[in-house]
Amino acid sequence: MSSKQQLIEQIIQAWHELQRQTPLVQCMTNSVANNYVANILLAAGASPAMIDNPFEAESFTQISSALSINIGTPTTEQTQAMLISAQTAQQHQVPWVLDPVGYGAVLKWRSETVDQLLHFKPSIIRGNASEISTLAGSQVQSKGVDSTLDSQDVYAQAKSLLQHAECIAISGESDYLISRQLDAVIKVNGGSHLQPKITATGCALGALTAAYSAVSSPLIAALASHTHFAIAGKLAYDQAQTVGSFNVMFMDYVHMLDENLIQQYVDIEILD
Amino acid sequence: MSSKQQLIEQIIQAWHELQRQTPLVQCMTNSVANNYVANILLAAGASPAMIDNPFEAESFTQISSALSINIGTPTTEQTQAMLISAQTAQQHQVPWVLDPVGYGAVLKWRSETVDQLLHFKPSIIRGNASEISTLAGSQVQSKGVDSTLDSQDVYAQAKSLLQHAECIAISGESDYLISRQLDAVIKVNGGSHLQPKITATGCALGALTAAYSAVSSPLIAALASHTHFAIAGKLAYDQAQTVGSFNVMFMDYVHMLDENLIQQYVDIEILD
Amino acid sequence: MSSKQQLIEQIIQAWHELQRQTPLVQCMTNSVANNYVANILLAAGASPAMIDNPFEAESFTQISSALSINIGTPTTEQTQAMLISAQTAQQHQVPWVLDPVGYGAVLKWRSETVDQLLHFKPSIIRGNASEISTLAGSQVQSKGVDSTLDSQDVYAQAKSLLQHAECIAISGESDYLISRQLDAVIKVNGGSHLQPKITATGCALGALTAAYSAVSSPLIAALASHTHFAIAGKLAYDQAQTVGSFNVMFMDYVHMLDENLIQQYVDIEILD
Repeated sequence: MSSKQQLIEQIIQAWHELQRQTPLVQCMTNSVANNYVANILLAAGASPAMIDNPFEAESFTQISSALSINIGTPTTEQTQAMLISAQTAQQHQVPWVLDPVGYGAVLKWRSETVDQLLHFKPSIIRGNASEISTLAGSQVQSKGVDSTLDSQDVYAQAKSLLQHAECIAISGESDYLISRQLDAVIKVNGGSHLQPKITATGCALGALTAAYSAVSSPLIAALASHTHFAIAGKLAYDQAQTVGSFNVMFMDYVHMLDENLIQQYVDIEILD
Repeated sequence: MSSKQQLIEQIIQAWHELQRQTPLVQCMTNSVANNYVANILLAAGASPAMIDNPFEAESFTQISSALSINIGTPTTEQTQAMLISAQTAQQHQVPWVLDPVGYGAVLKWRSETVDQLLHFKPSIIRGNASEISTLAGSQVQSKGVDSTLDSQDVYAQAKSLLQHAECIAISGESDYLISRQLDAVIKVNGGSHLQPKITATGCALGALTAAYSAVSSPLIAALASHTHFAIAGKLAYDQAQTVGSFNVMFMDYVHMLDENLIQQYVDIEILD
Repeated sequence: MSSKQQLIEQIIQAWHELQRQTPLVQCMTNSVANNYVANILLAAGASPAMIDNPFEAESFTQISSALSINIGTPTTEQTQAMLISAQTAQQHQVPWVLDPVGYGAVLKWRSETVDQLLHFKPSIIRGNASEISTLAGSQVQSKGVDSTLDSQDVYAQAKSLLQHAECIAISGESDYLISRQLDAVIKVNGGSHLQPKITATGCALGALTAAYSAVSSPLIAALASHTHFAIAGKLAYDQAQTVGSFNVMFMDYVHMLDENLIQQYVDIEILD
């Protein structure tokens, strides 16, 4: 069993590997998020490429170091591409992250697509509490694509999802991670209440998790990405308390993170 | 007949209701605007969701508190979704805003779609002077999708559009609002000449108008959103006179607006 | 043959003409870049319009002063529109820029589309070293859509592309321009190593080149746009060394550029 200090060392190692390898990450994301996701990945040290058409999906996934699929604003062509890339990722052992934005009864089409995508065994599923809870079989009332549930109420339910993925990450005021690798729940504290006021921060977190999965195990990838965002969010909020300026500072701190900042500000707990 | 002071009180009330209700606003907007629109709505206090595919349009509009349709960069699927959602909005009394970007002879396809959308009776039509004038039947030379007309020359023509919508909002250096509710023209002053130098500010204003229409009458919704932008634009320009920095400050002030700032900076006139 | 001082005078004249004419530039670009591209063009003085559907492509290209085609995230409809607009641009002598993002063996579909687009004789082809080298017939290993080659190794190969276009612009740490107009290579120095850390700066540079091509020859258009970015990048980096803040300052300096700043900071070389 990993101690907290061991986990922190693995986070730091993952961050160093991300800088050293600058992994190519194929991002299939929504139209709201794509610019922001690309900029976050570049700032963090990865090399994003937004290839999301069905005619190039297979060949591109084969050369990618990781794949991020986010179902936020699907089109027919993009949905076809996602299914092709997920299958290719599974066949070629490319780690991939599934972000089931808006999963639930109201948005049936994407939810059925997510159900199909699960067959290709994502390495990590990342979502907010409402999405993860619904995906785990609960009937949840959500408000649009934002969560109405608290993350900590959900991680017990989420265990059933470990049949589909090696790691489940539930974002919220604090984030909760569960995995096949570790028989415990890891809680990541930090961030800022302004992060949900910036659109696509969750989407960018999913893509950053994919980037880290190119250089570490699914659990450490999720832990490193959530820690990366938690520290950057906390430090940005210390500098700026309104959304426009906060967003600029947040991008700055995603870029400026280093071993010292991780050592100084990481705030994780291992729960039973 | 409303006095100016009564209107200002209704603007303040609408702003408070927006904060209290955080209405779910379905935004079908263009590919240039979607990230910016989502961030503006979050900053202002609403809950945006960019659902724009034809397979989820009907079910999502049914649960939305308001709908914003902006025809800036239409695709075939998005156009289908817009028609479904506009019809659903009419059937379920969901208030909705139509932003006929680029309406005119050069861009026939979208213009025919706009003509179809008008059958579903938008609550509010928002556009620049060229778009509104052309929609009202004039032959206007416009330059791309930006306006070449002055707003105040157009509001007389725009009255014919009140057969389609309860309120017409014409954006420009000053904005002009007409409605079935009030036999007068309301002029909204403020803003900054830098706003047209930031892409999608008009699109975001349309979506914010939709957000306010979830918590107030069409006229007050348009008045509150245009006042919100006029004050934020004026205060941002006091801080920053170049487009990059102005844009950050504008987002900050959209977020920071409150009752005191509205009282202090609102600048509206009731014209005969 | 032009002297360096004559070229600088032509850059300044092009900048003045851009401000005076504010040319309408049709941009068909990728989903990551469109907001950023529109803001860069507005900041620089042009009038962008993102019309990229096949139903409006022909009529809009006819009234545009220049056209920018960037193949970053193609959809079927967008690809159809690009072919229509490129053909229309050729027929109506509308100058146009081709940005063959990701050209190469892995991304076959877009590469075949680029091959078709070349038949319509772009005024300028702009890309990074990997893209230009591959387009010129070399077998290059690239990492996703970013370059793995150095620009200066490529300009000799790129000469073969002058059969397709009047000017070829190769971006990198320094930029290299070749053209039919001048029997020399022009090197543009400046910029910042942070520019590749901001997504879509290359795409925006291609669109700005299109904007300048509405008011000057292909070579001067490429020279003016690359100088515009090189100076703005250098001045922004003097103010901000992290990506979030740098990006804001970069937009500011794209907006603030003027004759004096060009005179003071232009850094070009004419190579044999």
